[in-house]
Amino acid sequence: MPKRTLPANAVTDARDGEPLKTTAPAVVRAVHILDVIAAAAEPIALADLARQTSVPKSTLHGLCDTLVKLRLVKRHANGGMTMGSYVMGWANAFLSQTHITEEFRAVWETSSAFAQETVTLSVLDGTDVIYLACHNGNRPLGVTFRIGMRLPAPYTATGKAMLSTLPGSEAADLLAGVWPAPLTRASVGTYAALVDEMAQTRRDGYSIDNGQMREGMICFGAPVFDASGERAVAGLAVSFVTNDIDLATGQRIGHQIRDLADQLSVRLGASVRR
Amino acid sequence: MPKRTLPANAVTDARDGEPLKTTAPAVVRAVHILDVIAAAAEPIALADLARQTSVPKSTLHGLCDTLVKLRLVKRHANGGMTMGSYVMGWANAFLSQTHITEEFRAVWETSSAFAQETVTLSVLDGTDVIYLACHNGNRPLGVTFRIGMRLPAPYTATGKAMLSTLPGSEAADLLAGVWPAPLTRASVGTYAALVDEMAQTRRDGYSIDNGQMREGMICFGAPVFDASGERAVAGLAVSFVTNDIDLATGQRIGHQIRDLADQLSVRLGASVRR
Repeated sequence: MPKRTLPANAVTDARDGEPLKTTAPAVVRAVHILDVIAAAAEPIALADLARQTSVPKSTLHGLCDTLVKLRLVKRHANGGMTMGSYVMGWANAFLSQTHITEEFRAVWETSSAFAQETVTLSVLDGTDVIYLACHNGNRPLGVTFRIGMRLPAPYTATGKAMLSTLPGSEAADLLAGVWPAPLTRASVGTYAALVDEMAQTRRDGYSIDNGQMREGMICFGAPVFDASGERAVAGLAVSFVTNDIDLATGQRIGHQIRDLADQLSVRLGASVRR
Repeated sequence: MPKRTLPANAVTDARDGEPLKTTAPAVVRAVHILDVIAAAAEPIALADLARQTSVPKSTLHGLCDTLVKLRLVKRHANGGMTMGSYVMGWANAFLSQTHITEEFRAVWETSSAFAQETVTLSVLDGTDVIYLACHNGNRPLGVTFRIGMRLPAPYTATGKAMLSTLPGSEAADLLAGVWPAPLTRASVGTYAALVDEMAQTRRDGYSIDNGQMREGMICFGAPVFDASGERAVAGLAVSFVTNDIDLATGQRIGHQIRDLADQLSVRLGASVRR
């Protein structure tokens, strides 16, 4: 199990990277503790948790006791702590309330497009995308998408597709000062370069991640809308081995993923844009 | 989307139903707010949230602002609130850290048992089971299992299997005073009756939910162990239409699901019990 990096904006305000101003510091502290526990590859001891969160050990002890009682944290026999099962119920509620995953399944079942391919559905979460549904295809890509997996939005096809729909300076504000660490040598390196990609995405109707998330993999993405407006509520993408895709094939796939995304948008109440 | 019932023991101590003693009341309050938002079928307004949580509106306002900033809550344009995407990352961390779901997939892929059937994997979460992996089969059962779905443990095959492994008076303590509302007319009605079922489960090696979770459905379950001991860390079950299963078939299935659970236990480091 690889060590996960802590989402940069969990306990800081996503806009300016400053600590979150709040009337409930204990809640922010508890969320920080949960983030550190979630990112740990192995059960984490109280002393390590204290060091990583900078919460005094006495305070931390009481908070951890509460989180254990709430089953948000599981304490093992040796004192090590991991995430608790309670979060699964919240995740289920989130998935039910978005409706997007059910509608995605419905679209997927009636469509013959990409039946053998790796297709993913994600939403924006700060500067990351979080995957809500994944159909892992037959061909090895060197990566398996998992529900709940988190990746930097600028380097993914779904993220680029969603970012390209944000109005005004929202994408710029979101990414100001928190440019994520590159995942490959191809990962787009500056906001200015991303602006070009977003313009191309808007013009073509689909986004391309050409090895920015993983070397040797190319992904085509498209935004998903609902009735609420011009801002994408999700992104849909399909992934291939780069060497299998020539230019004409790529353009055909781009239009196909956009068609599939549009079908999903219609089910969510959007009037389709082109 | 049906209204979900609030887990009875979210903000009360599971043992005695009393309010949780804590040094972090704001955290408990925040969790209660998240539970109410998670249980709501539609986006919930601040006024409704205040009524359902009994948190004063002024306090609630600040807490909700913090939860929105942390993306644990999503606030919609009309002010209604739903669960936020942030919980998906925690759920992913939980699933990675338990290892059980990966091992389940590995066992599932090498086994030919129940390839066409509905097979579920769950863990105990207080008096509920929470589903961590589901393979929904080809035949209609009138129910679709979803990851993160929560059901009262006493009425499910996985729950009965896990409860039957709890040492001493733990099952009795757990269920004292918090007997869940029945799901069907067949739902086991008293702890005494469950004790008989648990004894039979221990004797036979597998549990049976005969229409207790859903009328017309019969499920066979077995406990999954790891190296830590006699207490099950998960439950595995397979579901059928009741009318398809005669006594001999049921016994055969019971032994098959136990075999599959044992394979999983071995992968998790357990010495297999019989």
